[in-house]
Amino acid sequence: MTLPESFTLQDFAAFLGREFVGDPNIPITGVNVIHKVQPGDLTFVDFHKYYDRSLDSAASVIIIDKPDVKVPAGKGLIISSNPFSDFTKLLRRFRPFEPSYQNISPTATIGEGTHLQPGVVVGNHCTIGKNCLIHANVTICDYSIIGDNVIIHPNTVIGGDAFFFKTRNGDNYHYEKMPSAGRVIIEDDVEIGSCCTIDRGATGDTVIGQGTKLDNLVHIAHGAVLGKNVLIAAQVGIAGKTIVEDEVIMWGQVGVNKELVIGRKAVILATSAVSKSLEGGKTYFGAPAEEARQKWKEMAALRHLPELIKRMKDADGQA
Amino acid sequence: MTLPESFTLQDFAAFLGREFVGDPNIPITGVNVIHKVQPGDLTFVDFHKYYDRSLDSAASVIIIDKPDVKVPAGKGLIISSNPFSDFTKLLRRFRPFEPSYQNISPTATIGEGTHLQPGVVVGNHCTIGKNCLIHANVTICDYSIIGDNVIIHPNTVIGGDAFFFKTRNGDNYHYEKMPSAGRVIIEDDVEIGSCCTIDRGATGDTVIGQGTKLDNLVHIAHGAVLGKNVLIAAQVGIAGKTIVEDEVIMWGQVGVNKELVIGRKAVILATSAVSKSLEGGKTYFGAPAEEARQKWKEMAALRHLPELIKRMKDADGQA
Amino acid sequence: MTLPESFTLQDFAAFLGREFVGDPNIPITGVNVIHKVQPGDLTFVDFHKYYDRSLDSAASVIIIDKPDVKVPAGKGLIISSNPFSDFTKLLRRFRPFEPSYQNISPTATIGEGTHLQPGVVVGNHCTIGKNCLIHANVTICDYSIIGDNVIIHPNTVIGGDAFFFKTRNGDNYHYEKMPSAGRVIIEDDVEIGSCCTIDRGATGDTVIGQGTKLDNLVHIAHGAVLGKNVLIAAQVGIAGKTIVEDEVIMWGQVGVNKELVIGRKAVILATSAVSKSLEGGKTYFGAPAEEARQKWKEMAALRHLPELIKRMKDADGQA
Repeated sequence: MTLPESFTLQDFAAFLGREFVGDPNIPITGVNVIHKVQPGDLTFVDFHKYYDRSLDSAASVIIIDKPDVKVPAGKGLIISSNPFSDFTKLLRRFRPFEPSYQNISPTATIGEGTHLQPGVVVGNHCTIGKNCLIHANVTICDYSIIGDNVIIHPNTVIGGDAFFFKTRNGDNYHYEKMPSAGRVIIEDDVEIGSCCTIDRGATGDTVIGQGTKLDNLVHIAHGAVLGKNVLIAAQVGIAGKTIVEDEVIMWGQVGVNKELVIGRKAVILATSAVSKSLEGGKTYFGAPAEEARQKWKEMAALRHLPELIKRMKDADGQA
Repeated sequence: MTLPESFTLQDFAAFLGREFVGDPNIPITGVNVIHKVQPGDLTFVDFHKYYDRSLDSAASVIIIDKPDVKVPAGKGLIISSNPFSDFTKLLRRFRPFEPSYQNISPTATIGEGTHLQPGVVVGNHCTIGKNCLIHANVTICDYSIIGDNVIIHPNTVIGGDAFFFKTRNGDNYHYEKMPSAGRVIIEDDVEIGSCCTIDRGATGDTVIGQGTKLDNLVHIAHGAVLGKNVLIAAQVGIAGKTIVEDEVIMWGQVGVNKELVIGRKAVILATSAVSKSLEGGKTYFGAPAEEARQKWKEMAALRHLPELIKRMKDADGQA
Repeated sequence: MTLPESFTLQDFAAFLGREFVGDPNIPITGVNVIHKVQPGDLTFVDFHKYYDRSLDSAASVIIIDKPDVKVPAGKGLIISSNPFSDFTKLLRRFRPFEPSYQNISPTATIGEGTHLQPGVVVGNHCTIGKNCLIHANVTICDYSIIGDNVIIHPNTVIGGDAFFFKTRNGDNYHYEKMPSAGRVIIEDDVEIGSCCTIDRGATGDTVIGQGTKLDNLVHIAHGAVLGKNVLIAAQVGIAGKTIVEDEVIMWGQVGVNKELVIGRKAVILATSAVSKSLEGGKTYFGAPAEEARQKWKEMAALRHLPELIKRMKDADGQA
């Protein structure tokens, strides 16, 4: 999330009521989770796996629950007993929920030649380009950006919240919500089927690249980035922050785990479950997905296994 | 389904035009399918697998197609050539379809601080608690009960009919619908993603426990009961009457069969297919799902199987 | 797609600005893709796999990119450098997009006793029969035909566009859309769950046969034909032009590939992936789906494989 104006380390520490370390005038121009930070960003860390990554990142300011950590040169720290909750306070300050009272928000911008069918809801601060066709009962949530010549079929949801919670362990075990401050960006010439769900990023962008086509009931999670001319068949699900490069093809009901990279022109056959990054230009199958040629061999071999085991048992019996 | 007032065995037999056996004044206070009956309930049975279970159940009155059966002490029987259809007549009498002519039914109760986005439809006799956020184009069907601080993302459906039909075999093979008379109950602090479908119970309740979080395109069938702080990723489907205990985690595209119990803190990895009840506190994978450690071993072994079979064939050729 | 009136070879060649071969007065009464053509139809071909099939088909006129081909007796050819795009021009001429400005199109016909809940959108040229119940926020797209006594649960989409694109290879790799000119036909006594997507045919009909019941989140692709009294559980996906014969049962999350035939009374167990046509009257399981009995044997054998491989390695070590 890019801030509407520049703030300082001192400003945000005061807003949160927390101590800070570093130059009070370090400028803060964005608020982002660690997966995608740049200079000027504030981020947070509260988990052993990410301390080093956060301190070494491009972020300018880090909300952290370790008061004794060495401050990296030129950076600032906000010392907090609860970095996650403090981070969400900032998100809520700059992206408060804004209720809608009419189907098309007066703050939305809609391009020439674009037609919205009945029942379409367009949230606040959305931009829709030219010559789009948005079919009936589609919901486009706040801050979504849609290019030109985009077709969205009925009852699809663009920009629902990221499924992103912090697990609070202990006696009061529960999940604490990360409010969504990111966006969905849909580039030109995209077509999206019926009843799809494209979630906005937690703080960054979910992107559907130019010319990409999605069939029905497809789920694209927060922060996933699909390249150009990707083809996704029905009921595919792609988890958070995964990158799908140009011209990838996924057939029906494929599932792809989070934070992976699917290489250019990879083809993933129907119902496969992808648990690791895949090299481009090859065809994959299975759960977990492997190169299809290898998987076919395994499938063929498996068909002979019952007979094989029977023969071995018979041989054991004879010996 | 609890009746609005108490009836008697005689009342219902007369309404159905059927003979009965037992004290005509046995009170009937509920109408429920056999899976969940209590004293005062009327139920029905027409299938050999369930005769004993029904007669031995807590139900006070049973519609049955066996005229010669021994009446259990204190119970009543309604003798019917068609128990299923008679049972549905009672459901339709007490839960007739009530059409809606406006988006928010005047019989719905909506708590303070709750906001409904455009296009939301709330059916008859619904209750929504305080400080909820119901996003655009969500449909909440009749008799649903929603607690406080609940978030429901766009285009989700709460309280659609149970997928529950009786197969009528023979020359006129067809499916006869069980009208849905149950409810959906969503407890406090639940969050439900976009394009989810939570069906109402046939006669009982589908429950989403306090603090539970569902991602997008999740299907929860009739009478399923999810505990507290359950975490369900996108495109998961849970079949009818399955119980999911507290703090269970299911990753994307998992499918769970009907009438199972998934134990507390079980973790089910993505795309698994659960065909039997699972003990809590363990991690599962595969189709059908087994303990993940065992499944990984099988997967690793399978990778060697083609080579193994080749070697055995070569050895056979040499012998 | 049947044309509203009869045209000639000459008419269409002139409209497209193309040369033609054959009797200029050959009548054209329909425009259809090669999968389902009859005398009087115009079709197109631009792919080596289909030249012979198209020329030998029942179609009267073929748009073709081979100028030197021998014209079959009684047929006409339109010679085009771009048969696909010319074909789509004809589809767009006869099925131009017609925007809707109100929830129920004035061109829709709705039968007596049918009730539409709030938020339902019914497109142009739709017909809905008698005594149907269309639940809230359902979208029924142009040219859909729905019989009597049909129930459609909330937020389902009937008649979204076929997911049908031509891959344009080369430097400007992209997908070119086939506009949908076909229909969805839903016969009497069908029930369709919540958030389902039933796509219209590309040029032909998608059919849901009499008495068939679909659970929630089911995807039926363009041109699929489901017979009578088919039972489809939640989250099943059926790809384009597949034929599902009467009384087939598919349990949850099954995926079925395109252009297959699933025989009468076949049962496909949950989460199976069907990659080839299946004989009726049998039970199938797995990915890819096989007869369940065979699959159970493989599953049981697989459980012993890790131990088997260990024993063989131990034996190798001893030898």
